[in-house]
Amino acid sequence: MREVAVIGIGQTKVDEHWNKSLKELAGEAVLSAVHDAGLKQVDSLFVGNMMSASANNQQQLGAYIADWVGLRYAESFKLESACGSGSAAFRAALLAVSSGAIDSAVAVGVEKMTDSPGGEITSQLATAADADWELAQGVSFVALNALIMQRYLHEYGWTKRDFAPFSINAHANAVYNPYARFRKEITEKQYIEAGMVADPINLMDASAIGDGAAAVVLIPLERLTFNNAFPIIKIIGSAAATDSIAIHDRKDPLWLKAAEISSKKAYSQAGLTPEDIDLFELHDAFSIMAALSLEASGFAERGKGPSLGLSGDIKPTGKIPIATRGGLKARGHPVGATGMYQIVEVIQQLRWAAEGTQVEGAKIGMAQNIGGSGSNILTHILQRIN
Amino acid sequence: MREVAVIGIGQTKVDEHWNKSLKELAGEAVLSAVHDAGLKQVDSLFVGNMMSASANNQQQLGAYIADWVGLRYAESFKLESACGSGSAAFRAALLAVSSGAIDSAVAVGVEKMTDSPGGEITSQLATAADADWELAQGVSFVALNALIMQRYLHEYGWTKRDFAPFSINAHANAVYNPYARFRKEITEKQYIEAGMVADPINLMDASAIGDGAAAVVLIPLERLTFNNAFPIIKIIGSAAATDSIAIHDRKDPLWLKAAEISSKKAYSQAGLTPEDIDLFELHDAFSIMAALSLEASGFAERGKGPSLGLSGDIKPTGKIPIATRGGLKARGHPVGATGMYQIVEVIQQLRWAAEGTQVEGAKIGMAQNIGGSGSNILTHILQRIN
Repeated sequence: MREVAVIGIGQTKVDEHWNKSLKELAGEAVLSAVHDAGLKQVDSLFVGNMMSASANNQQQLGAYIADWVGLRYAESFKLESACGSGSAAFRAALLAVSSGAIDSAVAVGVEKMTDSPGGEITSQLATAADADWELAQGVSFVALNALIMQRYLHEYGWTKRDFAPFSINAHANAVYNPYARFRKEITEKQYIEAGMVADPINLMDASAIGDGAAAVVLIPLERLTFNNAFPIIKIIGSAAATDSIAIHDRKDPLWLKAAEISSKKAYSQAGLTPEDIDLFELHDAFSIMAALSLEASGFAERGKGPSLGLSGDIKPTGKIPIATRGGLKARGHPVGATGMYQIVEVIQQLRWAAEGTQVEGAKIGMAQNIGGSGSNILTHILQRIN
Repeated sequence: MREVAVIGIGQTKVDEHWNKSLKELAGEAVLSAVHDAGLKQVDSLFVGNMMSASANNQQQLGAYIADWVGLRYAESFKLESACGSGSAAFRAALLAVSSGAIDSAVAVGVEKMTDSPGGEITSQLATAADADWELAQGVSFVALNALIMQRYLHEYGWTKRDFAPFSINAHANAVYNPYARFRKEITEKQYIEAGMVADPINLMDASAIGDGAAAVVLIPLERLTFNNAFPIIKIIGSAAATDSIAIHDRKDPLWLKAAEISSKKAYSQAGLTPEDIDLFELHDAFSIMAALSLEASGFAERGKGPSLGLSGDIKPTGKIPIATRGGLKARGHPVGATGMYQIVEVIQQLRWAAEGTQVEGAKIGMAQNIGGSGSNILTHILQRIN
């Protein structure tokens, strides 16, 4: 199993890109990643995307995007695991390169949601829930997360206000990220008074959808010269785990078992513990998910996730910085692209290029991407090695 | 790069399974493959599927099917490359196992098309074409293939009757396959007189959609004991290539460049030439595709594909048997499952268990799965090693 490095990154701003098609967005990210890597060509392309069939009338995104970026004839596929699609493409690219079958790969996550010919996006997003047991009851994805948050407040005695720091931190960090959708700070008052979506989740608990693409280039470490323009970033942990899609079918709906399994595997591969992680790009699609992710990944005890927000430990200067470039909440959440934005942002931090929100001396970063309400979770750990 | 063997196979009959859901079909195939392999558990699941988002209101098939077959918490993803999705899942599973990251995997292709809540299947299939340049003109997938066939007849001087042997052979072979949808022979007269779909493609040139699932189990060769119940089948060639999705954008619309590239790579990995292949499960979604696939893969000269049908060389007793269990034409074409049916059928042949259509002494079999009208093509070569 060859060791693999990430040598190029690229991304578009998350926005309502009504003037850009899906392939233009993906192309921008792929070509800037390849350029950033200093390569002329790569061998293969792995695409993460959730909803192009309905939102863009287009399947077969592997061939579609490969052709557009000048990789006609190259190997290329699409990976899908709902909002976890981005990092699924990253992991597939990693396995292909580490197997020795392929010598270089681009992984790109892309989603084009805001001017969809496929009708209402809320229904399209709901295909990540269980069609028979959840959709048939008429719940949306926000509603499912609201049920989880409601139960969490009841079970552990927190109030809604205790979740404010997750949103405030994400927005404060996004100010410095030119690729983020919402580049403005918010106050606790604004958090509390935001319009309710599905009680207790209001607009400031929920990430916004958007259009965007993010990409990285992977090559075997053995092909690297140490004259590269950028610090070398190695993938030292990669793991994925699933859980039941239907939330009622889990033994404990307040515990992200797939996050626990995949993070433990990744720690073990890297020979690390949570204390060694300098920053953690987690999947704050809803503020409750930030809390659950911190707990299941070993950064907080069960039921204690919000305390890391209240203590300031999640800030770039804190013990375990999260959402350092805005997170899903303020950078935006183009669903199939999100996992790749997280990886790109971890690399920016490890290159010490996260202007305005740099985690000082960051050497080890972790990204965790969640598909569905925790039904498919991937954890990756990256390390700066020079 | 570890060598990988296929040790278990499973499939459902291709049919209109109105009484079985997508996960029940996939489950049947997965569980029989795992049982056939003599395993109790596998580490991971790779799902090939094209249209569950629209046809079944369900994405996230990795977690969805993993949970259903008792693999909750295991790693699992969905791969999509239109009608090439099945073998894309197979290749992803192969790379994962050969990388050393995973010690056993099931690859399953599944499609549930015939009682879809998502509306007309022809439109859903058309998402494999180019939305901007093909769909916008109102062409269906059959129409695109009809344009190719029309051009082929014009260019090389064949008549429609010359394609009859592809369909006749497929139907003759399907008689012996209990998993095939159409188990009856057809005559040349029936072929000629069948109802026209899109001139010159009639009902006997076109494969039928259907519901079905097929699965195999992959493990590293090093884990095999030679006491296995079945002959050991090793994967000795695996390659994938893309082409433009829009057919008008290809230099030569009568040449499957991605088939040429992927088959040449697979031959080279296996150290073989087309003469060494004992049987070839090709992608006869339309009879014209059978001819083009034979040519691009080195079995016939350019423009000479139909001659292999006319000479009888494509029969189980011929020089290069194709569609030995009925092919897409008569076994049926549940699109995202087809690539896995092909692999399963190659393995049946190499186990010398293809009752009624056994290719005598078959040791080396090839499968080629096509996504779109040739925009994503995967070629696999398997060998019996004991």
